[in-house]
Amino acid sequence: MAGNIFGNFLQLASFGESHGVAIGGVLDGFPSGITIDLEQITFELNRRRPGQSQWVSSRNEPDAVEFLSGIYKGVSLGTPIAFIIKNTNQQPDDYEHLEDVFRPSHADFTYQTKYGVRDHRGGGRASARETSARVVAGALAKQMLAKAGITLQAYVNRIGAVAIDQPYYDLDLSQTEKSPLRCPDPEISSAMEEAISIAAKTGDTLGGEIICIIHQVPVGLGEPVFNKLHADLARAIMGINAVKGFEIGSGFKAASMTGSEHNDLFVEENEKVHTLTNFSGGIQGGISNGEDIYFRVAFKPVSTLMKPQLSIDKEGNQVVVQGKGRHDVTVVPRAVPIVEAMAALVIADHFLMNRMARF
Amino acid sequence: MAGNIFGNFLQLASFGESHGVAIGGVLDGFPSGITIDLEQITFELNRRRPGQSQWVSSRNEPDAVEFLSGIYKGVSLGTPIAFIIKNTNQQPDDYEHLEDVFRPSHADFTYQTKYGVRDHRGGGRASARETSARVVAGALAKQMLAKAGITLQAYVNRIGAVAIDQPYYDLDLSQTEKSPLRCPDPEISSAMEEAISIAAKTGDTLGGEIICIIHQVPVGLGEPVFNKLHADLARAIMGINAVKGFEIGSGFKAASMTGSEHNDLFVEENEKVHTLTNFSGGIQGGISNGEDIYFRVAFKPVSTLMKPQLSIDKEGNQVVVQGKGRHDVTVVPRAVPIVEAMAALVIADHFLMNRMARF
Amino acid sequence: MAGNIFGNFLQLASFGESHGVAIGGVLDGFPSGITIDLEQITFELNRRRPGQSQWVSSRNEPDAVEFLSGIYKGVSLGTPIAFIIKNTNQQPDDYEHLEDVFRPSHADFTYQTKYGVRDHRGGGRASARETSARVVAGALAKQMLAKAGITLQAYVNRIGAVAIDQPYYDLDLSQTEKSPLRCPDPEISSAMEEAISIAAKTGDTLGGEIICIIHQVPVGLGEPVFNKLHADLARAIMGINAVKGFEIGSGFKAASMTGSEHNDLFVEENEKVHTLTNFSGGIQGGISNGEDIYFRVAFKPVSTLMKPQLSIDKEGNQVVVQGKGRHDVTVVPRAVPIVEAMAALVIADHFLMNRMARF
Amino acid sequence: MAGNIFGNFLQLASFGESHGVAIGGVLDGFPSGITIDLEQITFELNRRRPGQSQWVSSRNEPDAVEFLSGIYKGVSLGTPIAFIIKNTNQQPDDYEHLEDVFRPSHADFTYQTKYGVRDHRGGGRASARETSARVVAGALAKQMLAKAGITLQAYVNRIGAVAIDQPYYDLDLSQTEKSPLRCPDPEISSAMEEAISIAAKTGDTLGGEIICIIHQVPVGLGEPVFNKLHADLARAIMGINAVKGFEIGSGFKAASMTGSEHNDLFVEENEKVHTLTNFSGGIQGGISNGEDIYFRVAFKPVSTLMKPQLSIDKEGNQVVVQGKGRHDVTVVPRAVPIVEAMAALVIADHFLMNRMARF
Repeated sequence: MAGNIFGNFLQLASFGESHGVAIGGVLDGFPSGITIDLEQITFELNRRRPGQSQWVSSRNEPDAVEFLSGIYKGVSLGTPIAFIIKNTNQQPDDYEHLEDVFRPSHADFTYQTKYGVRDHRGGGRASARETSARVVAGALAKQMLAKAGITLQAYVNRIGAVAIDQPYYDLDLSQTEKSPLRCPDPEISSAMEEAISIAAKTGDTLGGEIICIIHQVPVGLGEPVFNKLHADLARAIMGINAVKGFEIGSGFKAASMTGSEHNDLFVEENEKVHTLTNFSGGIQGGISNGEDIYFRVAFKPVSTLMKPQLSIDKEGNQVVVQGKGRHDVTVVPRAVPIVEAMAALVIADHFLMNRMARF
Repeated sequence: MAGNIFGNFLQLASFGESHGVAIGGVLDGFPSGITIDLEQITFELNRRRPGQSQWVSSRNEPDAVEFLSGIYKGVSLGTPIAFIIKNTNQQPDDYEHLEDVFRPSHADFTYQTKYGVRDHRGGGRASARETSARVVAGALAKQMLAKAGITLQAYVNRIGAVAIDQPYYDLDLSQTEKSPLRCPDPEISSAMEEAISIAAKTGDTLGGEIICIIHQVPVGLGEPVFNKLHADLARAIMGINAVKGFEIGSGFKAASMTGSEHNDLFVEENEKVHTLTNFSGGIQGGISNGEDIYFRVAFKPVSTLMKPQLSIDKEGNQVVVQGKGRHDVTVVPRAVPIVEAMAALVIADHFLMNRMARF
Repeated sequence: MAGNIFGNFLQLASFGESHGVAIGGVLDGFPSGITIDLEQITFELNRRRPGQSQWVSSRNEPDAVEFLSGIYKGVSLGTPIAFIIKNTNQQPDDYEHLEDVFRPSHADFTYQTKYGVRDHRGGGRASARETSARVVAGALAKQMLAKAGITLQAYVNRIGAVAIDQPYYDLDLSQTEKSPLRCPDPEISSAMEEAISIAAKTGDTLGGEIICIIHQVPVGLGEPVFNKLHADLARAIMGINAVKGFEIGSGFKAASMTGSEHNDLFVEENEKVHTLTNFSGGIQGGISNGEDIYFRVAFKPVSTLMKPQLSIDKEGNQVVVQGKGRHDVTVVPRAVPIVEAMAALVIADHFLMNRMARF
Repeated sequence: MAGNIFGNFLQLASFGESHGVAIGGVLDGFPSGITIDLEQITFELNRRRPGQSQWVSSRNEPDAVEFLSGIYKGVSLGTPIAFIIKNTNQQPDDYEHLEDVFRPSHADFTYQTKYGVRDHRGGGRASARETSARVVAGALAKQMLAKAGITLQAYVNRIGAVAIDQPYYDLDLSQTEKSPLRCPDPEISSAMEEAISIAAKTGDTLGGEIICIIHQVPVGLGEPVFNKLHADLARAIMGINAVKGFEIGSGFKAASMTGSEHNDLFVEENEKVHTLTNFSGGIQGGISNGEDIYFRVAFKPVSTLMKPQLSIDKEGNQVVVQGKGRHDVTVVPRAVPIVEAMAALVIADHFLMNRMARF
């Protein structure tokens, strides 16, 4: 209700300010009997972590997760799984000058006005650091889904003006993690690096796109009419910091297509119903149809610039703001595991709920 | 949970199959003391209704809403407002041939597989007829919002290949309802009519886009981090039949922009904080900032075609399907009030919840 | 949230004022594939209905339920089941004198103060007539539970000073419905009739107790720690009009017992774990243990008296109020199906949720 | 949904097993701008803590709470308040013998059957240690309520056969905390000590009763019909370990009363509506009426006995169990702050929600 609890049955309560004691979460509704691979969770956290390459920030947050409950002898108990990630390496001096300032396109002004108080350090609750909790919970969800054969893969499709042209199924997605920018096409990846390098020189930042594919989702997930599977995915993804757009399947292209182009014809293959095309993006009437689910996400460029910008302070006085320390030129590569995590939570939630559809 | 209840505090429980006895809803959490204008609700229903022009279908559903509770002497009681719209003018014969058939890009196959049974007549629960309940509830929400000075306006920005080029603030939106297609630009509206006419001749259908603007939203609406205002809007809108994409503010364009282009600089005007540009779309950090909220929605073309398509039946046998009776070439103009209704429900819900942010 | 939606996964949205157009409900989350016995639902409604005997009121509400959705060819679709019961036989003249009056121990004053407006006719939303919607939804839940072998039985254990002494398992509960007061002991039933007769003569009213037993609940229902099965039952039952107390198993007697008296010892019988006694009331740690679940409920006497009482009106002026028309001397016998209905909704809800406990 | 998140708008996500790393909670929806008194929270935790007297256990859990988020410079931010209490002083050897055993009237059997796995150490998730998280969250709620003038007081009304006879308003409740058993009547308190002493000698345990009073609740709290204020209180209280019964106001006594005895007559005093008696317990039609809210709670005797009992293990073999270490003879005095905490959470939740009743 107050915005920090996510999910229908599988629920994540997330907490933490960027420079508070810790961030973390409580995952309720996770079923018992699942062996938890802690290394896999650390691997996912490291994918989100700053300082992975020269391009994507260089602060060094260790992001070590500690599990407090819900797992016993390596197996989930069916009770809430709580975890924390302590905030270390804080340099509050970097933020003192921002206490009374509203940075452009940040949440400073809106939080201050809504709540009357705020923790300005590092963006407080509005910091993307909060998404670490989502990555941990998503990693747990992935392990549950893996037991059902469901897997997720996301990749960077665009950084600024540089984008991949082909659809996902024409790419070799096994190359994604080999690219420092999580772009499966090596040439495009290099071009992206160049674009970032140019933006960095002028103290500017870049946005981009991520595409995510979910494989082997069984038919039947999704609760029409308001919790259509893609509607819940949209909410999950649009709730990630800096996301401005979401499309499922054909997306905005569908608006220019005719019905005869867009309709996915059914065939039966090996006694399984299948569609010849997949403009639907694996979801029809809000319910998964067994095809690949895929969606595209737009990220705006990072708001913190390394060059001066005009803004105002709480009293309305004009001030000049400029990022201190080191900040990401683009967050899109680091957002890949976050997108996967949120998608995994949605699919896992609906996977469980679908057990109740029939008597 | 099971998908038919929408909202956090202000909750709509929707029900009804296309060819059942009635569709309707129960709106809980609607505050007391609001004078209800029933004519305004009928007006909104008529905007959604088929048969408004030669282009957008020609079945003639009367869609008369009956209120059953929650209103006494014309004023809301604070108790649930229940309403029904009876299903009349049903021609079940039109659907008999579809009982065992999975129409392409419809919800036939997924419903059948999820539930094991379905009401195939007119799409059953998956029919867009269900959105009438949303329009009624949204009309109530609009009346509440109007008391707070908040208004919504949506319009058709694209039908198939024909689209408006300018941003919303360069259009004369007072012209929207004068166009049979709810396109505020008369020339584009005519071009859209032509495109529809051509599609109709070949038994084909068209998709399109709607842009919606919400004016005078006070600063502070939205519950970070998972119920960001645009995340809840995204879920609401993506849950409308045929929607494939959603973007807030700059949307997918943001992905190609730099931070210095995209940042909305703050200024103070008349002791009010204001931004010089509005790429944020009126929402920062998930919370409204007082600027116009605007978003764009993509609709796929109608799946029911007036020409034969190959498909399969329940047993996997190949069959040919073709729409009978009269169907919409495009639903986008009729979707305008539905988009507004869902947006109004989200804003009203957050308007109420925001009362709890501070002690 | 606003109080008119009940349940976790299986959710009932209830609506209606006593003298509005209709009362009814929308039951979401009811699984597909259950054959619905409409006569059984009418039977349950008739058990709740006034005018069943000389003692329990004599208004004649027909209470005919109409189903609007969610059932097709007699089978549940998995979509919301909506139903209405029209309010007929209203005699608003009976209530005109109460428009500005706060009747003692009614909800007149609290509703008026909370909402600023109210529908005073027949108690409006606070009328026990609202419980008809619960009985219908509960009757559906019972049919689902019956498929799993779970049954419920409630009976009147006390009217005023007249009470049954034995525990439920020493009674012949098959006699319950043969008694006009739903008391399975014929002698006690007669004594209760006499007590009611005496109270009626003086225009007074009586309270009482109901005991409810739920048989064949499988082990594992209940979600610790906050949705313990008996906690959800308590909320369900305490939300019935006029209920003042709830106890599970040993209840208040447990407070005076020692641990060695109260502990239920486990034994294994026919490879099934079983307890020798059942002070736990079939629930341990919030989870059903396979024994009978039983609980006791206290009802206060009806607040509307057929003799004059002092009260005040909205302006604080002293007034005299007295019931007009015919009112129940006691509602306890009519509350038996309501208690069963609410318990059935809770058990059905937890029955479904328990499917998600394990991977 | 899965039972570990409590509340409607103000939501507590609780986590932790007795002998895991830590227990704790996340409180979402707590409004911003409230100065937090940490000492008061420690005070409440100490009231719940074992080892307070010779009678109520003698393990020595330090129960030091650490706040991780949601508070900045001593003031609530409106973001989630997370806190943990580390589990120290664990003596797992005390529990090894219980790994495969089902202790009588404990949750061992039901957890094992529901989840297939369990953390048997100290009761795992079913341990009353979990209630520490409730006490912390309740202490926060109390601080919010105190700003609105609302206070809560609970006391021990019965231990085993020894009980207070007078109603709460005839007692000097300022004496409650001076009694080691939280019994405001010094003589009864001594008699209770004696009863405990006798039970201790035989290795037996005792149950009891708590009465809780909530003062200065404004008129209007409570959401009819399913979230009646006393229904939400009942769920909250029945969810506390060992609770078997709950009654509001007149409670079970109401069942034997007549309407003319039970009705609370309205009067106006100093322009405020008031009732001459308060059998309603401060709630009418589910909504607070401004009078004292009071309720009574029954606790069963502690299940762990210091004398041998027959039971079975997982394989159904007969075993003998007996508590090791030191256990409470009665938990009722320690449950006083838990009852207050849960009641405070409910009242605070409804206090916030009531802001939305009217436009």
